Amino acid sequence: MTVDKERPAHPTSGLDEVVHQRHRLGILTIADEAERVEFTYLRETLGLTGGNLSRHLAVLEEAGLITVEKGYQGRWPKTWVSISERGRAALTAELEALHELVRRRRSRG
Amino acid sequence: MTVDKERPAHPTSGLDEVVHQRHRLGILTIADEAERVEFTYLRETLGLTGGNLSRHLAVLEEAGLITVEKGYQGRWPKTWVSISERGRAALTAELEALHELVRRRRSRG
Repeated sequence: MTVDKERPAHPTSGLDEVVHQRHRLGILTIADEAERVEFTYLRETLGLTGGNLSRHLAVLEEAGLITVEKGYQGRWPKTWVSISERGRAALTAELEALHELVRRRRSRG
Repeated sequence: MTVDKERPAHPTSGLDEVVHQRHRLGILTIADEAERVEFTYLRETLGLTGGNLSRHLAVLEEAGLITVEKGYQGRWPKTWVSISERGRAALTAELEALHELVRRRRSRG
């Protein structure tokens, strides 16, 4: 970072790529709205392939932002995703930075 | 996209990676706030290397979201960046989708 000390950092400088990437932002937003959410629901709601969703879940799990639990519903294998406290905090920080961007634009009319 | 017809697409599904990537979102936001903005100002405000900024500018220019103009200020070569009408529309769409995400979270308390 070479940001001038006299100049406050731009809101986008503080965004975390792990959270900001649009599909991961979608996963966190949805997981934040329920206690836990099923893989197929995420895949369909976000319009992702299973492989793509799996890769994004791995990034979020690696960062400690979600937990992934595998189990069965009757005979069917299911994968459940829950947001962690750290994930909720990261999502809050992201949405605050985004809100700041929206506010800047609006304050200019 | 395999989004269910019965289920409205999630706001993050509509985000455009060209605009959503955090540094490009920063460039567009700053360019939107002035008639034109100089390369060095962008580099310092966003805390990027020159090479990194150049690559993001190329992506935005390729998509028709900005125009890049090279010239001199006295003896010094300068690069000026301006947002296009298309860029302004893309930024508006992005900020509306982000605002929707923020609103969803807030409406839940």
